[in-house]
Amino acid sequence: MATSTETAVETIELTERECWDYLAEREYGRIAVVGGGEPAIYPVSYSVAPGGLRVRTKLGGKLMAILLNSRVAFEVDDYDGGQARSVMISGWAEELGKGAEFESSTPIAPFAGSDAHAVVLITPSQISGRVISRALAR
Amino acid sequence: MATSTETAVETIELTERECWDYLAEREYGRIAVVGGGEPAIYPVSYSVAPGGLRVRTKLGGKLMAILLNSRVAFEVDDYDGGQARSVMISGWAEELGKGAEFESSTPIAPFAGSDAHAVVLITPSQISGRVISRALAR
Repeated sequence: MATSTETAVETIELTERECWDYLAEREYGRIAVVGGGEPAIYPVSYSVAPGGLRVRTKLGGKLMAILLNSRVAFEVDDYDGGQARSVMISGWAEELGKGAEFESSTPIAPFAGSDAHAVVLITPSQISGRVISRALAR
Repeated sequence: MATSTETAVETIELTERECWDYLAEREYGRIAVVGGGEPAIYPVSYSVAPGGLRVRTKLGGKLMAILLNSRVAFEVDDYDGGQARSVMISGWAEELGKGAEFESSTPIAPFAGSDAHAVVLITPSQISGRVISRALAR
């Protein structure tokens, strides 16, 4: 589409601090897990919390079963028509708890069902992010 | 956040046709791959093509190395303030080719770098999607 009309593309790597600032601005992302050697992606609502990210999910659900005590990846992105921004995390997931104490600090909307009563903590081992800006002559 | 003020949540599963219609409306998503047992997520630009999805990536890049001839997951979502929609694919990735013939039919913006000259075909083995609508009393 833009192949022949593209005039400039600039990719800027974000600092770790900028990655966290970006995560704090947003409310949903995607978690990737591995089950039986196959990857799966789920959109999830999250919040930034001490030690990492908190994610709401369904007790006894498919995602819950796969992600506990396992390696996960997490990603947030957006595109505003000019800049494409993304932050990617590699880390570990563990169940933090359930009930009002955890739920009140972790958003449920927009991507969690009303039965998402468990809170999972994602502890990052690696975080990176970038902004891709392009000028197009359309 | 919305825990105590939520009045109604409705989750509707999309048909396969509706999933493809949704994919055709959008221009970028995320691909999940497994490398060394660990999942990773990358935002990618794509187009719907015969047999699946076409994705642009960098020749010799990290993503390219991991995804060739391997199981992948692909996801597209959006949230418009009222409805959260998502489509998830499980499938296989293979290099389709490189050069102008492929590039012209596969978008590069917004999430691919200017050096994304290879086109990868994702052939779905499974596709699902849903719309989550909620009414909130804020």
